[in-house]
Amino acid sequence: MSTDASDIREHEVAVDLPAPDDARLRFIGRIRTPWTTRETCPRQGKPDGPICRVEVFEPWVAALQGLDVYDHIELLYWLDRGRRDLVLQNPGRDGNVFGTFSLRSPVRPNPIATSLVRLVAIEGPVLVVRGLDCLDGTPLIDIKPERCAFSPKAAPKG
Amino acid sequence: MSTDASDIREHEVAVDLPAPDDARLRFIGRIRTPWTTRETCPRQGKPDGPICRVEVFEPWVAALQGLDVYDHIELLYWLDRGRRDLVLQNPGRDGNVFGTFSLRSPVRPNPIATSLVRLVAIEGPVLVVRGLDCLDGTPLIDIKPERCAFSPKAAPKG
Repeated sequence: MSTDASDIREHEVAVDLPAPDDARLRFIGRIRTPWTTRETCPRQGKPDGPICRVEVFEPWVAALQGLDVYDHIELLYWLDRGRRDLVLQNPGRDGNVFGTFSLRSPVRPNPIATSLVRLVAIEGPVLVVRGLDCLDGTPLIDIKPERCAFSPKAAPKG
Repeated sequence: MSTDASDIREHEVAVDLPAPDDARLRFIGRIRTPWTTRETCPRQGKPDGPICRVEVFEPWVAALQGLDVYDHIELLYWLDRGRRDLVLQNPGRDGNVFGTFSLRSPVRPNPIATSLVRLVAIEGPVLVVRGLDCLDGTPLIDIKPERCAFSPKAAPKG
């Protein structure tokens, strides 16, 4: 995690905190995209964006069973390049300041991104998708069916 | 985290893994809901569901600035009651087996839930929302504007 003083802009506010350790994550894969620098990476994915490849690590490949029925899936991934201590941000460098939770910036206390992407194909351990916006090599945290298309498979409660 | 043998159903498959530690989270708040047992908690939130209160911890309250312009927000929260090692699940106990990533079950390698909720009001450090589905006391991980309503505040790249 980079916390260089140079990463903070005028009018931005950082807080002082101990290292986070309320819960721990396991990376379950890696996302391959055409973007290798922050400058070229889009701010938001587009439905007709380029093909990207989501590589799922073992032993999680078996957990893809049944995903092929969904046209759209939700991906969660880890954005580890930014600082995690800003409460106010100045994204346009224009003095318009926003609270971190009113932005989808990668700079946030828990740098988890969520994207809704089109599932184009499943090739063994690889999901072929469109609609991503992250750097090549980004760690994968979770894969879920898109919430609107998904119906719980367990019996109703109550 | 409970990993009692009793938590596994017929036809379900668990994998053997070391403890997760690729990344660490900080809880930024706590979600108050009407549901205090897993049996009464709904499987999916409904837009017209009951009012729930999302309590944001200091020093993150300042990071809510600007969130009030959004009707819908995305919440990420931590579901710490289930096991994290299942690749195949039998949610209906009927022999129909699904891969973990084809379900929105809380049983997954990184038990992070995402919900899109209606933002009814902001009362100081508390977000009043409808559309949640989690147990009372669930730890909060992140708050984001709903992706369709959000436009990046920084200048376009390229």
